[in-house]
Amino acid sequence: MTQTRQILAEMINDKDSRPSRIFSACIQILIVLSLVTFSIETLPNLSPGTQRILFLIEVVIVSIFTAEYVLRVTFAENRLRFIFSFFGLVDLISILPFYIGLGVDLRSVRAFRLLRLFRVLKLARYSKAICRFHKALLLSKDELTVFGLLAGILIYLSAVGIYYFEHQEQPDRFGSVFHSLWWSIATLTTVGYGDIYPITLGGRIFTFFVLLVGLGIVAVPTGLISSALIEARRLEEKEETEKAERLAAVEPES
Amino acid sequence: MTQTRQILAEMINDKDSRPSRIFSACIQILIVLSLVTFSIETLPNLSPGTQRILFLIEVVIVSIFTAEYVLRVTFAENRLRFIFSFFGLVDLISILPFYIGLGVDLRSVRAFRLLRLFRVLKLARYSKAICRFHKALLLSKDELTVFGLLAGILIYLSAVGIYYFEHQEQPDRFGSVFHSLWWSIATLTTVGYGDIYPITLGGRIFTFFVLLVGLGIVAVPTGLISSALIEARRLEEKEETEKAERLAAVEPES
Amino acid sequence: MTQTRQILAEMINDKDSRPSRIFSACIQILIVLSLVTFSIETLPNLSPGTQRILFLIEVVIVSIFTAEYVLRVTFAENRLRFIFSFFGLVDLISILPFYIGLGVDLRSVRAFRLLRLFRVLKLARYSKAICRFHKALLLSKDELTVFGLLAGILIYLSAVGIYYFEHQEQPDRFGSVFHSLWWSIATLTTVGYGDIYPITLGGRIFTFFVLLVGLGIVAVPTGLISSALIEARRLEEKEETEKAERLAAVEPES
Amino acid sequence: MTQTRQILAEMINDKDSRPSRIFSACIQILIVLSLVTFSIETLPNLSPGTQRILFLIEVVIVSIFTAEYVLRVTFAENRLRFIFSFFGLVDLISILPFYIGLGVDLRSVRAFRLLRLFRVLKLARYSKAICRFHKALLLSKDELTVFGLLAGILIYLSAVGIYYFEHQEQPDRFGSVFHSLWWSIATLTTVGYGDIYPITLGGRIFTFFVLLVGLGIVAVPTGLISSALIEARRLEEKEETEKAERLAAVEPES
Repeated sequence: MTQTRQILAEMINDKDSRPSRIFSACIQILIVLSLVTFSIETLPNLSPGTQRILFLIEVVIVSIFTAEYVLRVTFAENRLRFIFSFFGLVDLISILPFYIGLGVDLRSVRAFRLLRLFRVLKLARYSKAICRFHKALLLSKDELTVFGLLAGILIYLSAVGIYYFEHQEQPDRFGSVFHSLWWSIATLTTVGYGDIYPITLGGRIFTFFVLLVGLGIVAVPTGLISSALIEARRLEEKEETEKAERLAAVEPES
Repeated sequence: MTQTRQILAEMINDKDSRPSRIFSACIQILIVLSLVTFSIETLPNLSPGTQRILFLIEVVIVSIFTAEYVLRVTFAENRLRFIFSFFGLVDLISILPFYIGLGVDLRSVRAFRLLRLFRVLKLARYSKAICRFHKALLLSKDELTVFGLLAGILIYLSAVGIYYFEHQEQPDRFGSVFHSLWWSIATLTTVGYGDIYPITLGGRIFTFFVLLVGLGIVAVPTGLISSALIEARRLEEKEETEKAERLAAVEPES
Repeated sequence: MTQTRQILAEMINDKDSRPSRIFSACIQILIVLSLVTFSIETLPNLSPGTQRILFLIEVVIVSIFTAEYVLRVTFAENRLRFIFSFFGLVDLISILPFYIGLGVDLRSVRAFRLLRLFRVLKLARYSKAICRFHKALLLSKDELTVFGLLAGILIYLSAVGIYYFEHQEQPDRFGSVFHSLWWSIATLTTVGYGDIYPITLGGRIFTFFVLLVGLGIVAVPTGLISSALIEARRLEEKEETEKAERLAAVEPES
Repeated sequence: MTQTRQILAEMINDKDSRPSRIFSACIQILIVLSLVTFSIETLPNLSPGTQRILFLIEVVIVSIFTAEYVLRVTFAENRLRFIFSFFGLVDLISILPFYIGLGVDLRSVRAFRLLRLFRVLKLARYSKAICRFHKALLLSKDELTVFGLLAGILIYLSAVGIYYFEHQEQPDRFGSVFHSLWWSIATLTTVGYGDIYPITLGGRIFTFFVLLVGLGIVAVPTGLISSALIEARRLEEKEETEKAERLAAVEPES
């Protein structure tokens, strides 16, 4: 009994042991499977047979996830802290709608099933490489905020500008600043669906200048991320060198 | 009385005190609110009730902004210098059209209301993180100019080229070099609305080569900004190191 | 006889001699020629005369490639190892379908002719500059994996979100999560064909936020590649410096 | 007379004197003017009066450019070398079609008038900031070549792949590999006009994978340019430091 407990604890908490690795791989496969079945459920004209199979798969997956959640809570060092941690809540939310949905009308809860997709975020827990991204994000947080603000101002001003140029000619497409905002976003991110575009000379010249400035909307975040990643790498190296030096300084003394 | 004066002065000028922070947050919320109401005003088929409410909000916002402007002028160290500074002018322009508009016909002044949007730029005043961007911009100013020139030449040459290829087949869409310029811009920024594109074999092969070179239109400014941001970060660090060294050098002397 | 053997061996294996250079240039021209003839074969309404010429060119090219393959196997240091190496297999696959296709029905084998395109990959063998790319790829492998995962999650969540917003209004275009995935990909890579786009207010606001985050889909890999290339360059330089130092340290001893 | 000669020589050759600066600014304005008049000439339905004015402007501009060319040849240190240098040829080509066109039928020479646009390249001569770009280009030349090759292979393979997937369903749009190449280019550069896109499930899944890899088409050159620009900046700094050190080392000796 104690041995089983130990294996289970190892399976859930330890990250380098073999049972843990097998277990987390299985959970990841199940998460992807649940996402696929969820997608298939949205297909129109499903036969009742298929629906039954999908429901069965759903029941099995939720059962396993529930067992996993109970184990995680059981073996957590601080149970309350785990339950209210980000991943604790994601784990709970990814199974809860199923149980609530059984008693009540399923259709109204459907929208909440979206949250079941957060299961996929659990995949992230198993990865260590996120750390450098995190560091780079911290390093460039301020600049990204300023850039976001400037980008927002640019998008808004572009929308107002194009509204004045195109409002008269295309009253249905550029009906208000809100309609123009849709154009701004699709244009400045260079998506350009082609459902809405300027046709007047003024509007096109305006778009020309907006795009010249707007290239920065793509260029600046890229530059920020590049420089932050380089800085993160440099800091890591520096830390390692310092650690090595400290070790070298301590050793002769001992 | 003197105390009120002091609090007001602190509220407007000082950046680290509590009243100042609350005040600037309120102003920022008002700026966003005024932008939203401006956008709503452009919606077609507004009821007279809604229009009255929007006008009331406008009156309140302009009053507060006027009071803010008067305070800023009052507590400025050099009043004339503030009035003719960039933000002084933006502050004035963001409220002036309202007062002028009251007496004269509102419709003709409407275009000037666009300038009211500059209020949003006031948001930028409160941010310190812009400094690094500014440094990076200064560092890459020359290269950005050269790149802008090269990009302009490329856009122009592409427009002329596609004009010769597509003019015969699509006389309405590629009617002149100016029409082709619209295609050049939409294509080289990779927006690609789809309202205008080559259909001849020659035009498509030409587009192929234009796009191969044209990828640089996105790649080069990104590279410039990346390298400038990295350089700015390095210079900052260097300055700090030098400052620390100078301090260390001064200290033993004292 | 022995001399011919030596020249042939040199032609195939050595990379710096003159016969080798001429030989590899000829092979590269033949590869491009075979790709062009393959493309021409797909053109509709080819005259029987053209088809005969194309077949003749194909026969000649395959003969030369077969001779090359036989020579490569003959002069390989370890024959079995070469045959099962990546380029050994590509060499074989690029000629095999032709021989198999002669006896059996050609049409069913057509799909496999796609593999003949791998010939083009042989071009890569002759280049040394790939090394730095390889190093940069190794350096950023982990981050690219994490980013790929995050991008996948973002694409999936966007697809589910837009499905809920647009499903009711456009049941044919956003018929299921799979249909929405097509939209996600075309939008987040900023291609934006314009065959499928949101029309509801909710869908557009959702797209706005998706695109703001989605800019990272383009920005992050660029940043990763930039930083990895810079790191690769720095490591190269470091290695060279260390090598030079070691040489300098060894010399005085001798 | 000698003084006039000296002023003219200064005007043309020296880059720091005042007459030179004024002269080059005038030439640049004339170049832009000639480009604008050329564009206006392509407009349909021009009145004879406008055409006469445009022709007059053309005559004046060509006269000035001819005078400039004669002066440049006269004051060149090595006349033959200047005439056959890149800018010497561009200068000549930008005026020659006008003289040839006077005697012969103007329409047939029209295509050559495109070359008149090379005048615009003369603008580049006056700029010093191009140097760093040049260095960065030299540093990343090899990688750009390899990347170009890989991109070419990817574009070709994508075209062949989509041809097999979409050929049956859309025989007019994906009629041959050449038609598919047009799709490849428009998609992988993320332009996405929307005139041609996959509609089959297989084609869309294929596009998905092509785009995942194809993001590199934008990301890699950006990364290359970033890293090369950073390297170029670092090398510049290094050179300056070395120069300063050498100067410092020389001084005490003297």
